[in-house]
Amino acid sequence: MSNPEVMKFEEFISKIIRGDIRSISRGLTLIESGSELSEVIVDGISANCGRAHRIGITGPPGAGKSTLTNLIAKQFSSQNKKVGIIAVDPSSPFSGGALLGDRVRMSEVWMDPNVFIRSLATRGSMGGLSVKARDAADLLDAAGYDVIIYETVGVGQSELDIVKAADSVVVILVPESGDSVQAMKSGLMEIADIFVLNKGDRPGAEQSMSNIRSMLMMKFEHAVKWEIPVLKTIASEAYGITKLCDSLTAHYEYLLSTNKLYSNRAKYFNERVEEIVRNKILENIMDSSGYFHNRSGNSNDETVPTLSPYQAAINLIEKIKNSLTQK
Amino acid sequence: MSNPEVMKFEEFISKIIRGDIRSISRGLTLIESGSELSEVIVDGISANCGRAHRIGITGPPGAGKSTLTNLIAKQFSSQNKKVGIIAVDPSSPFSGGALLGDRVRMSEVWMDPNVFIRSLATRGSMGGLSVKARDAADLLDAAGYDVIIYETVGVGQSELDIVKAADSVVVILVPESGDSVQAMKSGLMEIADIFVLNKGDRPGAEQSMSNIRSMLMMKFEHAVKWEIPVLKTIASEAYGITKLCDSLTAHYEYLLSTNKLYSNRAKYFNERVEEIVRNKILENIMDSSGYFHNRSGNSNDETVPTLSPYQAAINLIEKIKNSLTQK
Repeated sequence: MSNPEVMKFEEFISKIIRGDIRSISRGLTLIESGSELSEVIVDGISANCGRAHRIGITGPPGAGKSTLTNLIAKQFSSQNKKVGIIAVDPSSPFSGGALLGDRVRMSEVWMDPNVFIRSLATRGSMGGLSVKARDAADLLDAAGYDVIIYETVGVGQSELDIVKAADSVVVILVPESGDSVQAMKSGLMEIADIFVLNKGDRPGAEQSMSNIRSMLMMKFEHAVKWEIPVLKTIASEAYGITKLCDSLTAHYEYLLSTNKLYSNRAKYFNERVEEIVRNKILENIMDSSGYFHNRSGNSNDETVPTLSPYQAAINLIEKIKNSLTQK
Repeated sequence: MSNPEVMKFEEFISKIIRGDIRSISRGLTLIESGSELSEVIVDGISANCGRAHRIGITGPPGAGKSTLTNLIAKQFSSQNKKVGIIAVDPSSPFSGGALLGDRVRMSEVWMDPNVFIRSLATRGSMGGLSVKARDAADLLDAAGYDVIIYETVGVGQSELDIVKAADSVVVILVPESGDSVQAMKSGLMEIADIFVLNKGDRPGAEQSMSNIRSMLMMKFEHAVKWEIPVLKTIASEAYGITKLCDSLTAHYEYLLSTNKLYSNRAKYFNERVEEIVRNKILENIMDSSGYFHNRSGNSNDETVPTLSPYQAAINLIEKIKNSLTQK
């Protein structure tokens, strides 16, 4: 970049940090598009982020994630907090999915100047999605948003990666048979800091609550400092939202007071760095077929690799070395 | 290595491949000790492995994994198959744990010339354990063992990694409340090719069987070719073992006939290579504290990283480059 361009870019970054909506929006578009500039943006804003409470909201399709996200945003906004929503659920009304009615119901939060909503396209590589979601959250964080909410459907490793990197994870279930089981199977159980049983006026709600509680009891045989709350909400009536937001704030304060906020963030930061390194190093040299090839000319041996894993590793390291020294 | 040493080493490898017990045992000791020679051993035997059926047996402590492993080994041995057992469960009688009585009951299989038993110490780094377990299985595979059984307690990522890399995974549960739930939570549900309800004469066995079956029904909404059997055993009476071994053989034939044996092994081979590369590259250059440091002199900012993740990644790549070009 020539000097005037650097100046312009610095001005762009400082506008983001000052909370200028147009610059934030443009920055997020660059991040979403996978532009190389997104790295420079993240570098530029990095020193200003780390102050937001990042919340991941996940659960099976139809659990009411968007409606609850909407209500949580409203609640925090009423406490004079700025809220950023990053929707990575293709069926979310925030992402343009779902029924028109859902989107209309959410018009309140769309019009709220304290709330900034951005959906990330889930088309294309899912691997990139978790990178983009975290970059986008960094940007909103640096721009002064106090609460950042990731809304993701709880399916797939990439979406799990996004949610895991949040400070507080809310898993939303509904009182339908098998949902709690489904949540456990897909790994959501492990990551929940708060459980919400939405549509809590439906039959079977009490039974579902007690099922979740008994599973949690089995999980925590040892003493833990944070007792995972199991909360009931009825999103259609905005029932239970204050309590949910209070629990989220309490969880954040727990993380701060125990230094877990720091250690969790350090852990996910390091994982993120390693993922970036892995992508940067391996993207151009990975053999699309991997290292396990059929032994040619011997069809009986097709379950035998042609190389030992250590030989394959040495070859790969050689490729990495060549690729790095060429740069 | 000087020439005579190479000769000796080649002789050692060919003895392993011919099934010489003393060489096998020595090779496994080298692998277990983490000796650098273990890589050379795996390189040497690699062309001869891939023919064994690798079975992972896992489940919660007390489910009867060792007794069932013992009975499965006996059954395959009676079919004139050579069986290698790799025990990575510290409480296993194979590993010297458990009560003397257990070990006495297993004396039959200890004396069986068709069965080779080796325990891997779980002390020290668990990360290394999954590497060692797979290296050990390669060795037994190359040495002509037809069936290789990993016995692991179903807890922890490393042990899950071992079992996942098997061709056929048997998850053992007992009819006690919450066990099936526990299995799901710890990720065992996802990897089971065969479910066994051991201690099937206890109260609640039928209920447990039907619970597992209904969970499986939810899991597989789409058609799959392999219908996961849910089998009942009573290990103390050797009840249900023939059926279990028949199911294992059927699963192996299913994998062979659908080419899944090849694709699964290719997948795990590639993961193993990447793990080796990661270990080789990163072991010496990883900052033990990672890349997320407190911003010095500003205690309010301790949840803010000093570098952006992309800057940290570039630094790490530079370190990798230096480390590789020095070699």
